[in-house]
Amino acid sequence: MKNFALKGDIIYTPEPGKFRCHEDSYLVCGDGKVKGIWRELPERFSGIRVEDYSGKLIFPGLCDLHIHAPQYSFRGIGMDMELLPWLETYTFPEESKYGDLEYAKKAYEIFTEDLRRSATSRVNVFATIHREAAVLLMDLLEKAGICGFAGKVCMDRNCPDDYREEDARTSAEETRKWYETVKDRTMMRPILTPRFLPSCSDELMEQLGKFQRETGLYVQSHLSENPEEVEWVKELAPWSENYGDAYDRFGLFGGTAKTVMAHCVYSGKKERALMKARGVYAAHCPQSNLNLSSGIAPVRTMLEEGLHVGLGTDMAGGASLSMLRVMTDAVQVSKMYWRYLDKKKKPLSAPEAFYLGTKGGGSFFGQVGSFEEGYEFDAVVLNDASLGTALDLQMDQRMERAMYLSGTEEITAKYVGGRKIFERL
Amino acid sequence: MKNFALKGDIIYTPEPGKFRCHEDSYLVCGDGKVKGIWRELPERFSGIRVEDYSGKLIFPGLCDLHIHAPQYSFRGIGMDMELLPWLETYTFPEESKYGDLEYAKKAYEIFTEDLRRSATSRVNVFATIHREAAVLLMDLLEKAGICGFAGKVCMDRNCPDDYREEDARTSAEETRKWYETVKDRTMMRPILTPRFLPSCSDELMEQLGKFQRETGLYVQSHLSENPEEVEWVKELAPWSENYGDAYDRFGLFGGTAKTVMAHCVYSGKKERALMKARGVYAAHCPQSNLNLSSGIAPVRTMLEEGLHVGLGTDMAGGASLSMLRVMTDAVQVSKMYWRYLDKKKKPLSAPEAFYLGTKGGGSFFGQVGSFEEGYEFDAVVLNDASLGTALDLQMDQRMERAMYLSGTEEITAKYVGGRKIFERL
Repeated sequence: MKNFALKGDIIYTPEPGKFRCHEDSYLVCGDGKVKGIWRELPERFSGIRVEDYSGKLIFPGLCDLHIHAPQYSFRGIGMDMELLPWLETYTFPEESKYGDLEYAKKAYEIFTEDLRRSATSRVNVFATIHREAAVLLMDLLEKAGICGFAGKVCMDRNCPDDYREEDARTSAEETRKWYETVKDRTMMRPILTPRFLPSCSDELMEQLGKFQRETGLYVQSHLSENPEEVEWVKELAPWSENYGDAYDRFGLFGGTAKTVMAHCVYSGKKERALMKARGVYAAHCPQSNLNLSSGIAPVRTMLEEGLHVGLGTDMAGGASLSMLRVMTDAVQVSKMYWRYLDKKKKPLSAPEAFYLGTKGGGSFFGQVGSFEEGYEFDAVVLNDASLGTALDLQMDQRMERAMYLSGTEEITAKYVGGRKIFERL
Repeated sequence: MKNFALKGDIIYTPEPGKFRCHEDSYLVCGDGKVKGIWRELPERFSGIRVEDYSGKLIFPGLCDLHIHAPQYSFRGIGMDMELLPWLETYTFPEESKYGDLEYAKKAYEIFTEDLRRSATSRVNVFATIHREAAVLLMDLLEKAGICGFAGKVCMDRNCPDDYREEDARTSAEETRKWYETVKDRTMMRPILTPRFLPSCSDELMEQLGKFQRETGLYVQSHLSENPEEVEWVKELAPWSENYGDAYDRFGLFGGTAKTVMAHCVYSGKKERALMKARGVYAAHCPQSNLNLSSGIAPVRTMLEEGLHVGLGTDMAGGASLSMLRVMTDAVQVSKMYWRYLDKKKKPLSAPEAFYLGTKGGGSFFGQVGSFEEGYEFDAVVLNDASLGTALDLQMDQRMERAMYLSGTEEITAKYVGGRKIFERL
């Protein structure tokens, strides 16, 4: 892959607190990685192809740490329940359909095409329990140019007969078979995906833990999302100190098993300490936590304690696929956290939320989410000219506005790993 | 104005709890009013013009009970403060510019054009203290086809020297002059607009009360938005029982002075009882209340107590001009109210929020916000085909999705008072 450059108004957050802005500059890509940013193109790059996006914002591709692809069909409806009845009523019936590959193809094509046109470049995706549909989803995501991790879901208890793997052995075997099919992929890589503790028997968890140690697979699941769920886990795993510890007993909570856990709304001090000790990522999903009446995660506290925190849509707990929207949701709920739960916890700022949605969560994928030298060349071009104003704005203000106001139509182009995967003509 | 009909999937909420759906039907307009809805066009309407929007949603124009037009320029930025410092830092400096009619024209043209393309048909708008710019804003809104109320802002204390009316007499006189210019308008009608109690001296309030009794003007202002503001009002009006009562002492709180008050986040039992007794409308602005860290208004309580409640963007406390978005914000914050403030207060449902944004707030403007016979013919056509899904959805589900997911580009056409004011070609 040859060198090339994007020209425009380049903005990113190497640190959480502040946007770094390079107006009317060149962002150079070499072999899929960021080479640097220059106001004038250095002589050694003279003659390289320049894509001219002058006047447009260029920022790192966004990292969605938690999406359920099969739930995309019912996004924006069924907002009248909390987590557990919502799973029974809306989610399991829909996910059970993905045994039909034709339906899976129809639904996943809609999802992947919308994702391609979004500002998201890297994802952690849940499929369903169906092995073939999970492979199909990975095919379609790769075809769309998206990188990250996808998992066949494992679940063998507390779910309907028509949407449950027969037993722990079957679930583990199907997971092995799926892994063998996809283990050599480099764009969408496999990730071990026990749905959440209530759906997985101890025996299944043991087998998955063993399989993790054999393969070194990363892990994704859910943690402390809803009060009733947390209570249920206490009943199901009375031997555990907390929900996180229940995963940890099976070796599925960070350490050598790099792990991301969605939500962490009710993660207490001990659970957070374990997350920190094990390097577990929290995928903060504020829009989902609003829609399912879950609550507000203690994000400021997690940041103060030095935990890894990124953002997720949690489609279809979250209705919108836009990670720009999720950033502003994170800011908004942090203000309610401050107002009603703890006045010592300062709300998130716009650049802090931007950091979480780029470099913060991006590190789960490697050198991702920044324009520092050596980072994966993931870049989004956004045309904010349609967001009219009588003011002359600074670049950081334009970026904040783009977070609050832009829809899909402002996304002009997207590059992932140096490859252009979308351009609005 | 002749009869005509719109054909499509017609949906509205004559009552709060449930959508009423008429699939593939005709919505007939006569003399700017709704005549009715029919599956087949009755013989007496045979031969009338039919606008064919088959397959698209048709719902009542949305009613934004609270917008600050001059703040549109800085929407989506400056989200790092609470109300009072936010006013000093961002709002007053921007509003002070509207003494320059050229700047006002440039900024208001952007605002009114975006409003024309939105799903909003009726508005209550704050201008600035500048009489001529307020008239210009009304001109531009009428040219854009929007109906409702607009007010020259009155303020003579606790604001910067370059953005304050000289004294109570000057403010009242300017208001009289402005009223004389615009009193005969039928689309954008004048409304008395004391900014909020802290900005208006007792003398000014007295003069405005007197002027209201002479003219019968409606009134718009702010109420109990932020804890520091509420405390400040206690200091400024120690003779009042509560913030609402402070307005009431001057005759500017409902009764014969039909009144809408924005926010009411901290309206206690007595204040709400006074609102109910006086028929005062609450303009619930959930997005603004999030952005300015204000809090969550007790909307369920207000509805139980029989208060008039509508929705507002509170541009630019709210960043988005979309009233569909505000409806979903209202649902989301009501869930946090339930979770953290009062488990007895059931969250709002989608059709309840839709009702508030249409018929609930619409009654401030007259027979507005429904498709019942005799209502103003305000109708929005929305093409939800771009919101892909593998499912076959019911109409009420499509409407809920449109609330959560649609941006400006899904708005296909808009009618206000029987007049087509926007169509996407």
